[in-house]
Parts: sequence; structure tokens; C-alpha cells
Amino acid sequence: MATAGQVIKCKAAVAWEAGKPLSMEEVDVAPPQAMEVRIKILFTSLCHTDVYFWEAKDQTPVFPRIFGHEAGGIVESVGEGVTDVAPGDHVLPVFTGECKECAHCKSAESNMCDLLRINTDRGVMIGDGKSRLSINGKPIYHFVGTSTFSEYTVMHVGCVAKINPEAPLDKVCVLSCGISTGLGASINVAKPPKGSTVAIFGLGAVGLAAAEGARIAGASRIIGIDLNANRFEEARKFGCTEFVNPKDHNKPVQEVLAEMTNGGVDRSVECTGNINAMIQAFERVHDGWGVAVLVGVPHKDAEFKTHPMNFLNERTLKGTFFGNFKPRTDLPNVVELYMKKELELEKFITHTISFAEINKAFDLMVKGEGIRCIIRMDN
Amino acid sequence: MATAGQVIKCKAAVAWEAGKPLSMEEVDVAPPQAMEVRIKILFTSLCHTDVYFWEAKDQTPVFPRIFGHEAGGIVESVGEGVTDVAPGDHVLPVFTGECKECAHCKSAESNMCDLLRINTDRGVMIGDGKSRLSINGKPIYHFVGTSTFSEYTVMHVGCVAKINPEAPLDKVCVLSCGISTGLGASINVAKPPKGSTVAIFGLGAVGLAAAEGARIAGASRIIGIDLNANRFEEARKFGCTEFVNPKDHNKPVQEVLAEMTNGGVDRSVECTGNINAMIQAFERVHDGWGVAVLVGVPHKDAEFKTHPMNFLNERTLKGTFFGNFKPRTDLPNVVELYMKKELELEKFITHTISFAEINKAFDLMVKGEGIRCIIRMDN
Repeated sequence: MATAGQVIKCKAAVAWEAGKPLSMEEVDVAPPQAMEVRIKILFTSLCHTDVYFWEAKDQTPVFPRIFGHEAGGIVESVGEGVTDVAPGDHVLPVFTGECKECAHCKSAESNMCDLLRINTDRGVMIGDGKSRLSINGKPIYHFVGTSTFSEYTVMHVGCVAKINPEAPLDKVCVLSCGISTGLGASINVAKPPKGSTVAIFGLGAVGLAAAEGARIAGASRIIGIDLNANRFEEARKFGCTEFVNPKDHNKPVQEVLAEMTNGGVDRSVECTGNINAMIQAFERVHDGWGVAVLVGVPHKDAEFKTHPMNFLNERTLKGTFFGNFKPRTDLPNVVELYMKKELELEKFITHTISFAEINKAFDLMVKGEGIRCIIRMDN
Repeated sequence: MATAGQVIKCKAAVAWEAGKPLSMEEVDVAPPQAMEVRIKILFTSLCHTDVYFWEAKDQTPVFPRIFGHEAGGIVESVGEGVTDVAPGDHVLPVFTGECKECAHCKSAESNMCDLLRINTDRGVMIGDGKSRLSINGKPIYHFVGTSTFSEYTVMHVGCVAKINPEAPLDKVCVLSCGISTGLGASINVAKPPKGSTVAIFGLGAVGLAAAEGARIAGASRIIGIDLNANRFEEARKFGCTEFVNPKDHNKPVQEVLAEMTNGGVDRSVECTGNINAMIQAFERVHDGWGVAVLVGVPHKDAEFKTHPMNFLNERTLKGTFFGNFKPRTDLPNVVELYMKKELELEKFITHTISFAEINKAFDLMVKGEGIRCIIRMDN
């Protein structure tokens, strides 16, 4: 490429300070250094985590910053030592990585890479501690190693999943984060047997993806639990067969579920991060074989409390991070699941806007409207 | 058999009241009714659970009662409808059962039979609510459906495991309860990969059996944790390679283990029932792949507390009951594991006494001496 080795000037949506609308700027994107990849972003989408760190409440703020971590793009150029991807490859950026060398990457069970595990405080590249993004020489910070709200970005190769070039990037871009997280929580971790009953706590994007995963796995009853009754109609498309709104009952959700299921659900997936929902999700899986999976990120002061007999009665409780997918190894296979029409991504995409309109995506997310809003970089 | 259908008069050790030495009596053992089996007990051993219910602290006392639930014997006669065992079969009585009809028995994952799950309060047969044991017409209560401190006993067929008749009953009788519980916690539930590191909390009979299971599974480091340093030398025979006495450290056991293992153990098995040990066992398995298994029975007011991020970091916590073995389906295979010399039962047997000396077994257990005391019924 003519641009390889050169600084690229391009448009990016910069967050100058916490909670203020993003500002469209011309930024300089430096060439990728050793083990780095520069990517032309074609589509990106907004995830709640972007909004959380943009609002920057209870955090050490890192600004100015370019957010964005769900996206699809094409490799423009690669730095020294990069052999796994080449210019022209279609890729998904991922907020957590896979170095393929550490104990976690070598374990079949873990995706919590020692080198490239998510780091929300770091705004620079791990290679040299510097940003590749700048305006008039002033560095703009990266976000979770991705910063996809830019026409070009630079990432560590360990966070870049090479995928089938025939896959439509405007659809599979949503697999970079939330959708894979919920999907994997069901298919990789809860693993509901065919014909089983699954409870999904929280019907946001992650919960709906968990329902979709339960549907793909062959669960016959999928019970959605949410305080917002508006979500129930939408959730049917994702396989939910029944609904519980805790507000409609005078007794604990555990009891409601026990009555609906002759003692408990076979699997539960907790996608709210609320500590009470976590405890409910665990206590109402069936004794003998029930498995509860925690996905939602809890408050830092939260405490999980239960009577240990709930474990002794042969229940299992486990948590997951990014649905236990290894980004580089497993995401290409998730894309294939979509290509085979087993995984239906279109259902998650409720809005599409141009890059210039990016602040609308934030408005929609803050209002809780829709599931995923695709942002097209090219118009 | 000449005795089939007749009341058998035989010797039994009767507990007339809580905490008082057992008294050798002549008892009447009625013939087995529908789905019941009468067994001639050849060897029995004492388990801590017998002592716990004999002491009857914080319990509704059920006396007079015949204790005993670890044993080996031969079927004397069977009641109506019994087809799985016949007179002459070698069997192990089990305190919990397998009806083969309920959802738990039909699940590959559970052994918590709805019909025959352990019930420590019931002192009678489930068929007709009566005892088969009596003295001068006065009923003597059963204990957990086994009552093996008697030359003959009557049990539900669902609690009787038919085993290889070549297996020495004076050895395999210890598989009825504690040894299988610890063994199964490791090989069925924790499933340590070959070369992994396993922590065992509590080095009593169950914990030593869990170590034995970890050894059989191929763990390369087995760290025993106990407040009683006297147990450490014995534990080496069961595969323990290292020891931690929490009394020797000024920091929490979690930190000691993290330093010994570069961040955490691959598996832990908690065999004390102490709530703090349970929490330690969970919190110090490695993130990404660690599995903690709870075996010890907690106090009824205990509360398991931890930060939910400990789950989100991809740790798994599960409990087990009787090592997840299905009594009738799986115990015959455990006996074969002994016959193939993979499982070494001799190490558990530290004392052998005659039936007349049975109160000595209680004394040893109360003093914490030895692991298993075999009681020979025939002399």
C-alpha cells in the first residue's frame, strides 16, 4: 500500500472530556510498530462499555481519547514481526487479546491472556508506552487497545481476529464484544443440553445474545427475566419462550422460577451485573446438575453471599469473560456460525447511521433504545 | 436359604441413647419386604457421620438406633420385586440410593436420587414406615437406611451396590461412604488434568481419599492443608507432595498458596466443612481455569461470601455429594479400580477389631487416631 510506513491523516471522533459529545477531528495515525497492525475501519458499533468509560464516573478519567471497540475492518499495513495477518485481510478488533504464549493462552480453558488481557486504564500501546494517535503532535489516548471510532487505528496483532473475507463486515462487526460475550456464555460455558430449560437474567444485548446461544444449543425453554417489560416482545426473536418480570411478583424470583420449572432451571446466565440477580441466578438452578454462569460485571463493593449447602447439592457456579472465546482462535469460527445461518446477527442490528452522526448512537444507548447501532465510516 | 422368609435373631450393637457406649444385644431382623434386601454383614467400619448422629448434638435424637453405614456383606434373601441382586451376591450398603427412575437418576450429572437421597432423620423403611429391627417386639430404629452394626440388616435394594465377588470385603467395605466421597470429589468433579496442582483442605479420611484421587488422576503437585501437623507424614502415602499448616503463617492461606504456585492452584478440594476453608479453597484456585470443589458439610448457619469478580475471572465453584458417584451404577467400577491396584485401599485401614470391641472404634474416632477401623463381624 502506498500509505504503509506513512502517517495517515483521517477522520476520528474524539472524546475531549467525560460525558461531552464526541467531536469529529482530523487525526494523525502513526504507522504500526513491531507486532502492531494498522486497520482501516469500515464499520463500528457502540457498546455499553464505551458509554461507561466515556461517562467516566468513579474512574480515573483518561482524555482526550478515541473510544470504540466493536468493529470490522481491513488491514492497511503491519509492523515488524507480524506474520498472522497481512494487508488486505478482513479483521475484527477485540478489546482483549491472545498472545498465544502465556499460560492462559496455552490452556484450553482460559482466554484471560496475561499480556493482552483487557486494560481499561491504559491509553497507550504496550510496546513502547506511546499513543499512535495524535492531533498536531498532541497524543490522543487509545481505548482498550482498539479505538475504532476512527477511519484508521493501530492495534497489537494479538487483539486482531482474521476472519473469512466473504463475511459482511457491517454485520459481523458486532461480534467484537457484547454479542460474543453473551453467545459464548451460553454455548461455551453454560452448555445447555438439548431440550433443557435456561433462565437469562437481563435482556440487553448481552442477555439476548445469551438467549440466542441457548436457542442454538437446543434449549427448549428459555425464560427471560427483566424489569423492563418492553424488552419481552423483542426477546422472542432470540428464542425466549417465557418471561418473568420480578415487579409482577410478591415473592423472590427464585420461588417464581422454582414453580415454573419443578424445582429449578437447568442453566442460568446472569447478564445484569446486579448482585441480587447473580445470587438469584445461582440459587435457582436445579440441584444435582444446575449450572449458573455470571457474565455481568458487578459493582466493586458487591459481595456474593449464599448458603454453602446450595453448592453441596451439586450446583455449579462459574463466571466468564468474553464468553470464554479466545479472540484470534475462536472468533473466526463464530463468524462461520453466522455464515452458516445458525447464528442470526441481523436481529441485533436495530439502527444504522453515518460516522458523522456518531453522537446519535450515544443518545440511543443512553435512552436504552435498540440493541446495536452500526456506524458506517464511509458516508 | 433356610432363613429366607424367617425372622433372623442375631447380634447387633445398639445405641440406646445419645453418646453412650453401644450395647451388644440379640435383635430380631424381619424378612425383607417388597424392593428390600436382607444382608449378612461381614465387615463394617466406622465413619465420622456415625459418631455425629450418635452424639446427636443440635439434632432431634432418634434412639434406640443401630448405626453403621460403611460395610460389605452378602445378600441373604430378597423381597418381592427385587431383580437386581440375588442371595449370595456380594454387596456394599450405601447411605444414599439410586432408584433409576427419577430425574436425578436419569441425569448423567446427578446422584441425588429423589426417592432414596440420604435422610438422617428417618429411622424406618420407606416402603411401610416401619423398622425391620426389634428387640422383644420393640422397634429399634434404622440409620440412613443401612444399620450395618448388626450381623444382619435390611435395606432398600436401591441402596445396595452389587460388586465383584472376588473383591475382598474387608478392604472394599470402606468404599461405602467417606473414601468414595473424597475419591469421587477429585476424579469425578475436580478432574485435575495430568501434571496439575491440587490443594486438599483437610487431611482426614475424606481429604486423604481426595488426595488419592488426585494422585490417580495424575496431578503432579498435591498440597495438603491441615491444622494438625501430625497428619502430614501419613498424607505422603496418599500422594501429598507439600504441606501447609495455616498456623505456621501470619498471612491468609490464599496468599501462601498463591506464592507457592505462581498465582493459584489448578484445583482445590475442601474436605473440612469449615466456611473459611471453603472460601479459601475457592479464592485461591487460579483465574482462567481453576475449579474448587466443596465436599465438607457446613454448619447450618454458615454463609459463603466472596467478591463476584472471583467468578468473573473464570473460576468455577461446585459442590459434590458422595463424590458424584451413583451408588449402584458406579461403585462396582470403583471396586474394579481397587482390583486393578490403581486405587490403594490398604492405606486407609489403620485398625482392625472384633465386633465385640466396637466401642473402641468410637474411642479412636473421637481421639482422631487412625483413618479407618475395620470391624470384623465374625469374631
